[in-house]
Amino acid sequence: MRPMRDYFPILDWGRRYDRAALSDDLLAAVIVTIMLIPQSLAYALLAGLPAQAGLYASIVPIMLYAVLGTSRALAVGPVAVVSLMTAAAIGTVAQQGSMGYAAAALTLAFLSGAILVLMGLLRLGFVANFLSHPVIAGFITASGILIATSQAGHILGVGASGHTLPEMLSSLIRALPQTNGVTLLIGLSVTGFLFWVRRGLKPLLRRMGMGARAADIVTKAGPVLAVVASTLAVWGLDLEAQGVRVVGAVPQGLPPLTMPPLSADLVGALIVPALLISVIGFVESVSVAQTLAAKRRQRIDPDQELIGLGAANLGAAFTGGMPVTGGFARSVVNFDAGAATAAAGVFTAVGLAVAAVALTPLIFHLPIATLAATIIVAVLSLVDLGILRRAWAYSRTDFLAVAATILATLTMGVEAGVSSGVALSIALHLYKTSRPHVAEMGLVPGTQHFRNILRHDVRTDPAILTLRIDESLYFANARFLEDLLAERVTPDCALRHVVLMCSAVNEIDLSALESLEAIAHRLDSMGIALHLSEVKGPVMDRLKATDFLARLSGRVFLSQYDAWVALAGPRGAAA
Amino acid sequence: MRPMRDYFPILDWGRRYDRAALSDDLLAAVIVTIMLIPQSLAYALLAGLPAQAGLYASIVPIMLYAVLGTSRALAVGPVAVVSLMTAAAIGTVAQQGSMGYAAAALTLAFLSGAILVLMGLLRLGFVANFLSHPVIAGFITASGILIATSQAGHILGVGASGHTLPEMLSSLIRALPQTNGVTLLIGLSVTGFLFWVRRGLKPLLRRMGMGARAADIVTKAGPVLAVVASTLAVWGLDLEAQGVRVVGAVPQGLPPLTMPPLSADLVGALIVPALLISVIGFVESVSVAQTLAAKRRQRIDPDQELIGLGAANLGAAFTGGMPVTGGFARSVVNFDAGAATAAAGVFTAVGLAVAAVALTPLIFHLPIATLAATIIVAVLSLVDLGILRRAWAYSRTDFLAVAATILATLTMGVEAGVSSGVALSIALHLYKTSRPHVAEMGLVPGTQHFRNILRHDVRTDPAILTLRIDESLYFANARFLEDLLAERVTPDCALRHVVLMCSAVNEIDLSALESLEAIAHRLDSMGIALHLSEVKGPVMDRLKATDFLARLSGRVFLSQYDAWVALAGPRGAAA
Repeated sequence: MRPMRDYFPILDWGRRYDRAALSDDLLAAVIVTIMLIPQSLAYALLAGLPAQAGLYASIVPIMLYAVLGTSRALAVGPVAVVSLMTAAAIGTVAQQGSMGYAAAALTLAFLSGAILVLMGLLRLGFVANFLSHPVIAGFITASGILIATSQAGHILGVGASGHTLPEMLSSLIRALPQTNGVTLLIGLSVTGFLFWVRRGLKPLLRRMGMGARAADIVTKAGPVLAVVASTLAVWGLDLEAQGVRVVGAVPQGLPPLTMPPLSADLVGALIVPALLISVIGFVESVSVAQTLAAKRRQRIDPDQELIGLGAANLGAAFTGGMPVTGGFARSVVNFDAGAATAAAGVFTAVGLAVAAVALTPLIFHLPIATLAATIIVAVLSLVDLGILRRAWAYSRTDFLAVAATILATLTMGVEAGVSSGVALSIALHLYKTSRPHVAEMGLVPGTQHFRNILRHDVRTDPAILTLRIDESLYFANARFLEDLLAERVTPDCALRHVVLMCSAVNEIDLSALESLEAIAHRLDSMGIALHLSEVKGPVMDRLKATDFLARLSGRVFLSQYDAWVALAGPRGAAA
Repeated sequence: MRPMRDYFPILDWGRRYDRAALSDDLLAAVIVTIMLIPQSLAYALLAGLPAQAGLYASIVPIMLYAVLGTSRALAVGPVAVVSLMTAAAIGTVAQQGSMGYAAAALTLAFLSGAILVLMGLLRLGFVANFLSHPVIAGFITASGILIATSQAGHILGVGASGHTLPEMLSSLIRALPQTNGVTLLIGLSVTGFLFWVRRGLKPLLRRMGMGARAADIVTKAGPVLAVVASTLAVWGLDLEAQGVRVVGAVPQGLPPLTMPPLSADLVGALIVPALLISVIGFVESVSVAQTLAAKRRQRIDPDQELIGLGAANLGAAFTGGMPVTGGFARSVVNFDAGAATAAAGVFTAVGLAVAAVALTPLIFHLPIATLAATIIVAVLSLVDLGILRRAWAYSRTDFLAVAATILATLTMGVEAGVSSGVALSIALHLYKTSRPHVAEMGLVPGTQHFRNILRHDVRTDPAILTLRIDESLYFANARFLEDLLAERVTPDCALRHVVLMCSAVNEIDLSALESLEAIAHRLDSMGIALHLSEVKGPVMDRLKATDFLARLSGRVFLSQYDAWVALAGPRGAAA
C-alpha cells in the first residue's frame, strides 16, 4: 500500500511552504501567465477549436496537476504536438467549427485522462518505453513541419485543409490566388519580429546594460507585444474591412462546467488516438520533468506523473478545454523564473482565469495571422532534421526508424506515423537480436584472458572450439545458434570439444534451452562434447531447475580459463 | 553468387551415387511407401479432401524435394498439422466436398509454395525464428487435440463440424444419438489394434526372436494390416448396407495436371493462412532435417530447404495435391530404414505412383473409420500437455506463452492460435528486457573481482556506486535506467561517482545513448561524475563515433578494478 503522500504530493511540499517560496512562485507565475495567454489561444486555433478552449485548458488542469503531479516546475496546458494530434483525431468524427467538434475535443481529453490515470494506478508507465527516442524525435520533427505548413494558410489569409503534408500543400497551392495582401503583411511582419526577438533582442538588451534575468523576461513578452501591436493596428486601421480575419467574440467569464459526450460510437472512434496522445504527451512531459527535477536534486515519480497528467486531462474535459500535457518551453521558463513549488502553477491558473474574465473583449480584433506566426516560430524550434544525420552516423537501424517515422507522419498523418515507427523499432530490434555477434575465442599467451581470434594474436587448440555469444539466448536467435554451430562444426573432424562462453548471456529462455539440448544431442552424435563457461548466477539457477546439466555430455566451468586448463591439458595450460 | 550446386543439391550427391546407396535407398523406399499409403489417404480425409489428393501430394512433391532439398532423409507429403490448417483455411472460402473446395486446396498449396520459394531466394529463413518453441509446442499439442476430436465423429459414424474445440464438441454431442454401431465397432477395434501395435507388438516380436530391424518393419506395417483387414470385413460382410461409410471410388491413374485458380478474391482470402502454413511447415521440417543430418555429420541449408519445400508445394498445386511439408514420423522411418540419399524419396514416389495406378480400386470398401483411427493414433503422440508443466517449472513467461497458445488454438482456431502465440511471445520478451536485472557491485577483499553486494560480503565506498547492467541498453529499457538512477542517486548525498559496468551490455542504441546523455547531464548537475567500465569492443566503437565520450564528466575504464583503483584511491586499492 502506497502512503497517501505518494498519491498527493501537495501534502509533502504544502506543509513546508513559506514566504520565500511564495514570492518566488508569484514572480514565476506572472512571467508564465504573460507567455501562456497568446500560446493558449494559438494552440486552440491549431486544434481547430474556439480560442477560449485553449485558455480554459490552462486553468483547472494546471490546478489539478499542482495537487497530484510530482514535478515542482512542470507547466501543463495545450501544447503544439498534442494540439495537432487532437485536430487529426477529431477531424475524422466532426466538422471543424461545429458544436460536435468542440464536444469531441472534450471526449478526447476525457479518454486521454482516463487512460493516463488507469496506467498510473496499474503502474503501466513502462508502456511509454516502446516509443524509442528516434521515433519520438522523428515524430516531433515531422509534426513541426505539419504544424508550420497548416499555419502557413493563416499567414496567407486562406484556409489550408488536410492532415498530411501532400494534402496540405496541394490545398495551399490551390488557395494561393486568394491570398489576402494585408493579412500576409501582418503575418510576415509578426513572424519576422518574433524571430528577431528570439535571436537578436536578448543580446541587444544585454549590450544595453540590462540584467540577464530582466532581458529574459522582456524577450518572453515578445509574443504579447506582437499581439497588442497587431490588435491595435487592425482596430485602428479597420483592417477587418480589408479581409483580415480576427479572433472575434470570445465569451467572457470563468471556464464553464461541461460534460464530455461519451456515446459508444464516439468513444470507439477516439480511443486509439486518445491512447497515442496519452503516451506521446506522457513521454514528452516526463522527460522535461525529470531533467528539471535533477537540477535541484528532486525526484519525480513516473507512475504518479501519469495520475497527475491524467487528472489534468479529466479537468480539461469537464471545463470546456482540450487535451493537455506538460509543455517544454513553458516549464523551462517557469523553472528559470524561479518557481519553487507547484503553487506557481496555481498562481498561473489564477492569472489566466483573470485573463478569461477581464481580457477577452480586448482580443476581439486580434488577427488570426498573429497567432499563426506565434505557432510557426514556436514549432520551427521543434524541427530538427539533424536527427537524420546523427542517427545515420550512429547506426543504420536507428536511422531507418527515424526516417520511416518522419516519412509516415508526413505522408500518412500523425497516428500512422507513430504506429509505424513503434512497429518498425520493435521489428528492427528483434531482427538485430536474432543475429547476435558470436566471436571465436583464443587464449592470450602468458595470461588467463581470452580474446577474439580475428582481432588478436591468440592460442587455439584444433580439438577445442570456444565461442562467446554476445546476446541473451531467446527464441528469436535460438535457431541462429543451431545453424551457426552446424555450419562451423560439421566439416571440422579434429574437433572434440565445443565451449560456449556465456558471460554476456543474460537470459536463456525455454526455446533457447531446447535449442541447446538439440545442439548438445547433435554434437554428441558427432562425438563432440558441449561445455559451458562463465554462466551468470540467475541463468545457472534456471538451468539447475532442469535436467539439461545432468544430460550434458560436457561440463560447466566457472571461468573460460578453467575450461581451457581442463580440456587442453597441461600442454595447453603451460602456454 | 551461390554456386549452382547449392541450388541443386542433387548435383552433389548424384555424382557419387553407387550400388550400395541404391540398395539402401530401395529398401527404405519400400518401407516408407507401405507406411505412406494409408497416411496419405487419411490426411486428405482430415483436410476434407478426396482420398486421392493425399496420394497425389506424395508423388511429384517428393520428387521435386529430392532434386532441390538439402536433407538426405526428409520425407515430404501431407502431414497432420498442415492438413488441419488446410481444412481451417479453405473451409472459410468453400463448402467441403464441392469442386471449389479441392480447387482452393491447390491455390493454398500454390501460395505456400510461392511464399517458401520467395523466402528462400531472399534468404528470409530467420522469419521462422519468431515462432518460439513454447508457441510451437503449444500449437502442436492443441492441434493434436483438435484433430483427434474432429476424427472422433468418423469413429462414431457421424459428421462433426467446426474448427474450434467448443464447436466440434457441441456438434459431436448433438450427433451422438445418430451413432452407427457397426462403424463404432470397426473404429474402436482398429484404434485398439493400432495402439497395441505401437506399444506391445515390437517387444513381443523381439521376444519371439525376430531381429530389431525386421520387428520395426512389421510394426510399421500395422496400419496397412488394419486397412486390409477392415476393407475385407466391410466387403465380405457387406457392412456398407449397415451404414458404414467407405472411401468409395478413387480415380485410377497417375496424378492429373491441374491449374490452381488464382482469382484476386481467393488469393486475398488465403494469403495469410498460406503464410502461417509455410512458416509452421518449414519450422517443423527443418528441425527434423537438422536432427537427422547431424547423426551422419551432414549439413542442411535452411534457406535452400525453403526452396526445396516451396518447390514441393508448387508441385502439389499443379498435380491435384494439397499443402505438404516434411513429416516427422515418415522421415525418421526413412532414416532408420537406411535411406542414404534423396533417391530414396524418388523411389517412394514411384511406389506411390504404382499404388495410384494399380491399388485404388482395392480401397473402394476401405472404411473411413479405419482412416480416422489411423489419424487418431498418429496425432495422440503429438499431444504433450507435459509442456505446460515443464514451461511452468522453467519460467512463468514461457508458461504464459504455451498456455495462451493452447487456449487460443482450441477456442479460436489454428490461425488465431499461432498469431496470438507469436504476438504474446514478442510482447513478453520486450517486457522482460524492459526491466533488466541491475546489480550493485562491491570488491571481493584481496582480489580484483567484483560481486553483487546482496549475494557476497564485499567492500564498497560511500562515494562510489557501481552498477552492473545485465542487458543490452535499448529503447525499451532506456527510461528504466533513468528512473532507477534517479531513485537510487537523488537521496544519497555522499555520492561522487557512478560507475556503470557494461560487461553484459551487447548493444547501446540511439535511445539508450540519449538516455545515458540525460543521465550524465542530470548527475552532473548534482555534482556526481558518470563513469563506464568494461565496455565491449563493438559498443565502444559506436560510442567513439559520437561526442558522448568527449562530453562525459567521468572516464571509461578498461576493467572495473581500474575504476576502483582510480576512484577509491590508495585506501580503496589497498583493501
